[in-house]
Amino acid sequence: MKRTTYAGLVDDQFVGQNVSLKGWVQKRRDLGQLIFIDLRDREGLVQLVFSKEFSEDALKIADQLRNEFVIEITGDVKKRQDKDINPNMKTGTVEVEVHEARILNTAKTPPFDIEDNVNASDELRMKYRYLDLRRPEMLRGLKVRNRITQAVHSYLDENGFLDVETPNLTKSTPEGARDYLVPSRVYPGHFYALPQSPQLFKQLLMGAGIDRYYQIARCFRDEDLRGDRQPEFTQIDLETSFLSAEEIQDITEGLIARVMKDTLDIDVKLPFDRISWNESMSRFGTDQPDVRFSMELKDLTETVRDSEFKVFSGAVERGGQVKAIAVPGGADAFSRKDIDKLGKYVERFGAKGLAWVKVTDDGFSGPIAKFFDVNRTKAVIAATNANVGDLLLFAADRKKIVADTLSYLRVELAKQLNLIDEDKFAFLWVVDWPLFDYDEGDQKWVAAHHPFTMPNEEDVHYLDEGEDPHKAHAQSYDIILNGLELGGGSIRIHTRELQEKMLKALDFTPESAKEQFGFLLDALDFGFPPHGGLAIGLDRFARLLAKRDNIRDVIAFPKNSKAAEPMTDAPSIVSDQQLDELSLKVTKTSFNDEDNK
Amino acid sequence: MKRTTYAGLVDDQFVGQNVSLKGWVQKRRDLGQLIFIDLRDREGLVQLVFSKEFSEDALKIADQLRNEFVIEITGDVKKRQDKDINPNMKTGTVEVEVHEARILNTAKTPPFDIEDNVNASDELRMKYRYLDLRRPEMLRGLKVRNRITQAVHSYLDENGFLDVETPNLTKSTPEGARDYLVPSRVYPGHFYALPQSPQLFKQLLMGAGIDRYYQIARCFRDEDLRGDRQPEFTQIDLETSFLSAEEIQDITEGLIARVMKDTLDIDVKLPFDRISWNESMSRFGTDQPDVRFSMELKDLTETVRDSEFKVFSGAVERGGQVKAIAVPGGADAFSRKDIDKLGKYVERFGAKGLAWVKVTDDGFSGPIAKFFDVNRTKAVIAATNANVGDLLLFAADRKKIVADTLSYLRVELAKQLNLIDEDKFAFLWVVDWPLFDYDEGDQKWVAAHHPFTMPNEEDVHYLDEGEDPHKAHAQSYDIILNGLELGGGSIRIHTRELQEKMLKALDFTPESAKEQFGFLLDALDFGFPPHGGLAIGLDRFARLLAKRDNIRDVIAFPKNSKAAEPMTDAPSIVSDQQLDELSLKVTKTSFNDEDNK
Repeated sequence: MKRTTYAGLVDDQFVGQNVSLKGWVQKRRDLGQLIFIDLRDREGLVQLVFSKEFSEDALKIADQLRNEFVIEITGDVKKRQDKDINPNMKTGTVEVEVHEARILNTAKTPPFDIEDNVNASDELRMKYRYLDLRRPEMLRGLKVRNRITQAVHSYLDENGFLDVETPNLTKSTPEGARDYLVPSRVYPGHFYALPQSPQLFKQLLMGAGIDRYYQIARCFRDEDLRGDRQPEFTQIDLETSFLSAEEIQDITEGLIARVMKDTLDIDVKLPFDRISWNESMSRFGTDQPDVRFSMELKDLTETVRDSEFKVFSGAVERGGQVKAIAVPGGADAFSRKDIDKLGKYVERFGAKGLAWVKVTDDGFSGPIAKFFDVNRTKAVIAATNANVGDLLLFAADRKKIVADTLSYLRVELAKQLNLIDEDKFAFLWVVDWPLFDYDEGDQKWVAAHHPFTMPNEEDVHYLDEGEDPHKAHAQSYDIILNGLELGGGSIRIHTRELQEKMLKALDFTPESAKEQFGFLLDALDFGFPPHGGLAIGLDRFARLLAKRDNIRDVIAFPKNSKAAEPMTDAPSIVSDQQLDELSLKVTKTSFNDEDNK
Repeated sequence: MKRTTYAGLVDDQFVGQNVSLKGWVQKRRDLGQLIFIDLRDREGLVQLVFSKEFSEDALKIADQLRNEFVIEITGDVKKRQDKDINPNMKTGTVEVEVHEARILNTAKTPPFDIEDNVNASDELRMKYRYLDLRRPEMLRGLKVRNRITQAVHSYLDENGFLDVETPNLTKSTPEGARDYLVPSRVYPGHFYALPQSPQLFKQLLMGAGIDRYYQIARCFRDEDLRGDRQPEFTQIDLETSFLSAEEIQDITEGLIARVMKDTLDIDVKLPFDRISWNESMSRFGTDQPDVRFSMELKDLTETVRDSEFKVFSGAVERGGQVKAIAVPGGADAFSRKDIDKLGKYVERFGAKGLAWVKVTDDGFSGPIAKFFDVNRTKAVIAATNANVGDLLLFAADRKKIVADTLSYLRVELAKQLNLIDEDKFAFLWVVDWPLFDYDEGDQKWVAAHHPFTMPNEEDVHYLDEGEDPHKAHAQSYDIILNGLELGGGSIRIHTRELQEKMLKALDFTPESAKEQFGFLLDALDFGFPPHGGLAIGLDRFARLLAKRDNIRDVIAFPKNSKAAEPMTDAPSIVSDQQLDELSLKVTKTSFNDEDNK
């Protein structure tokens, strides 16, 4: 029998019709002569009724059914009596009287229930991933992801972008994160690398005159995993020729608006705000600000420069900063104990304490209130826009510590005070990033974005001999959603001369530059157009739109936190023959202990 | 300045308008006070005219231009005088009088000309791939490919398929072709494999209730390369639940019709013919028949069983076959020398010679004509539908040799006689394939399609104890285009019992079955729906629609015949640190000689 529609779509429209449905037994209620089955498929549930009255054979079948059996049925759609209507079910006004039924497959009892908010361990869920994905909230994650990619394809196609595939077997470059390697059989001792991104290939496509490229591209990084990371991840990757940073941002906004409309039926307001990296750091202490709420950082460095409170004036004297946030209504909301807890919380960012005052009708109260005379109180209130009843929290330290302390505190307080509208999607551009970042770990300057990023026009001279390249800012832009980096991009360097200067500033010798990026430098010699682009993290975008806590929930078959896949048990030991063919020897083998993965 | 349109799109519609264009200098003709530039971009060429009359500054710029310089210009579109119209150019009726020009980048002289039918070696073209892709015929290949994928996304989305990504870091399975391996850093001595196809994952998605899945999926096989193969390739991959083989074929036909319409504006006639594998072998001697022309194989085994010509009767006696093709008008078209050449040609297929007769008004002529008396002549003519003037070519040997000989001969003759309409796209389904193939090399039975293929309902019993499984045919289907396999699929096994029987028939022990496919067998226990699907080779499809000879021409950055990539020089040597982190030692290193790649 041919399916008429999905079970989850049988609604009032179908009343009076004969339908054929296929799906899984979600639940069975056996009243003897009357058996109710909730039939589940991709689109939801519908209630089936089996009774001798409709079909004795079907009733016998129903008697054998257990959860997760696969069945097909034919029956008549009837309106339920008012008292039987289930308002929590999309199909709750109808039921199907079954005239014919057939078991297509049986099922053992699953290791966890197929329902939302399942109470099973992550490992168990991953081992039985095909069962976990049957749960509606998981299915919804995949559907949201699908809607995003469909919107991306249609919007970018309409806007003249060509979908071009770039290779997954590429050359290893020590720059950036650690590569996944793929040994070559034809060239013993040689390796491909899985791409960390299609960056160089998409630039070369601009050199090839493709003009507008996009790809939903798989990327790979062999790094230790954190919550929002996977060994393989997907980005919406695009590149254009001849466009300015603003034009690329405009196109991206159109793309995001389409995605929001097609996925969640939300109309986002365009254009998004664009703030410079400097402004973002100043107002929010972070380059990924969550602008769903206010509580911005206010600079008090000048206001307290000559304060008698030595924590403030001392910090300023040492070249540091004093900044504050005004917590609305915080004077009552936070006890001294609560504030002590916040002080504890910010220690992780290097803060040596958390100075505070409460704003009262008579000025400030609290242990350090005495250091604020009338004028300074007025000045602080003016600078922070604080109102009576607010709590003022101060950080006084090196710039980075102040920024970290107050930016994390800001988010933490917003959560505690329920200031965040979880239904809001707040997009924002942060532009003009520094060209270089100082890597505290490796004690060296690295490319903030990547080594192909174009400096701002007025900063190009910083890359000249005898100047300080690290002063340069870049034609780069990140798109932030709800305080998380959704993606980013830049205008790229399109002349060999500037690219060589940039690599030199990153401590490449001419030889190492040629060895690693010779093909790009050569390409720049042959009429390379001005170009730029952007990449958006699809996994994170899908997670945010599906309102899930972990990107694993929007990836069909993710890896666990140790980069293993418990269902198929990958990675695994391979045969000696496979290793021989690759001219490889394993020097150490971990126990093949599934529980370890 | 903002681009108005692509250079290649400036036609009569733009006459009288001021346009801004950006692109590459294709050609420069310097008449002193008048300089003509052909400006090229993604969409084609347009002629620019520089003259003191329009702008002295622009003329000075034009004087500096060389091939492949990148420029932007603003000018007025004018209709050309009748005598200047270039009918070979899409924009040949207009030209642009340039008022403003700017050089965006310079270019060295490229190593080969940027034009179709380039006369450069494959290696040179690959080393400068970004230049090769500027050539219109190459760009067209990527555009055709893009149109195909766009059509696939929109058609499958409209038909309720969900685009779901499956992992690229998977478990190695010795079945099938050789895996590309990816060493794990976290689990020393353990390896991921790059997927040869998403087969098991898409089946598991059916188990998860996705109902309709698709993906444009990258696949990897570490095999020695032939003309139409690449180490990584792409397939249009789909899988459905609850549908019959015919329903899946119908959906696929709709998909192909949409692709043909969107890509080449061709209306294909649906449904495609469906013939069984047996019929295909009988009529064409191959399971990938080119049906753009006739010349089918005719079985004469019974007709010549008792022939006095011992080559025929002997072959029949030994259990072989005698078959023939009638070459229309071949009696005049082929001299004895030509026929000798054909005899030579078929030796590679194991044929020991090529018997032939020409059909004349008086019966047969030729060396073996004497063996055909009036009755046998009549019988052969009736069986072959031969006409006067035809050439009859016979093969008499083992079944396989007869099939190979005549099927290749058929195609070779069609080429020589120009019987193939190169503008025709002839699609055809070949269905009901054998479930198993005998691998002559490894001397064992292997799965013809893959081990998850469902036997025909009436053949399921062949997999029972004591029966011969190799007699079974399968619910499988290949889609053939112009004599090439475009893709194929099958209904899959959805019960554990049958899957275990199938693996047993492939010589798996219960242990090795569990080791490799335990997760699938387990999944089949939990309510697996009936399901089936198909995969279409995107690279080949794009090659055929773009009318290119090599799939490399529809892949942006392909590998060469030794699986290397001359532009970036992948694969390459990696650092000892990288190997150490992976607990690997290289036992042999080939010379890092670029020329070898």
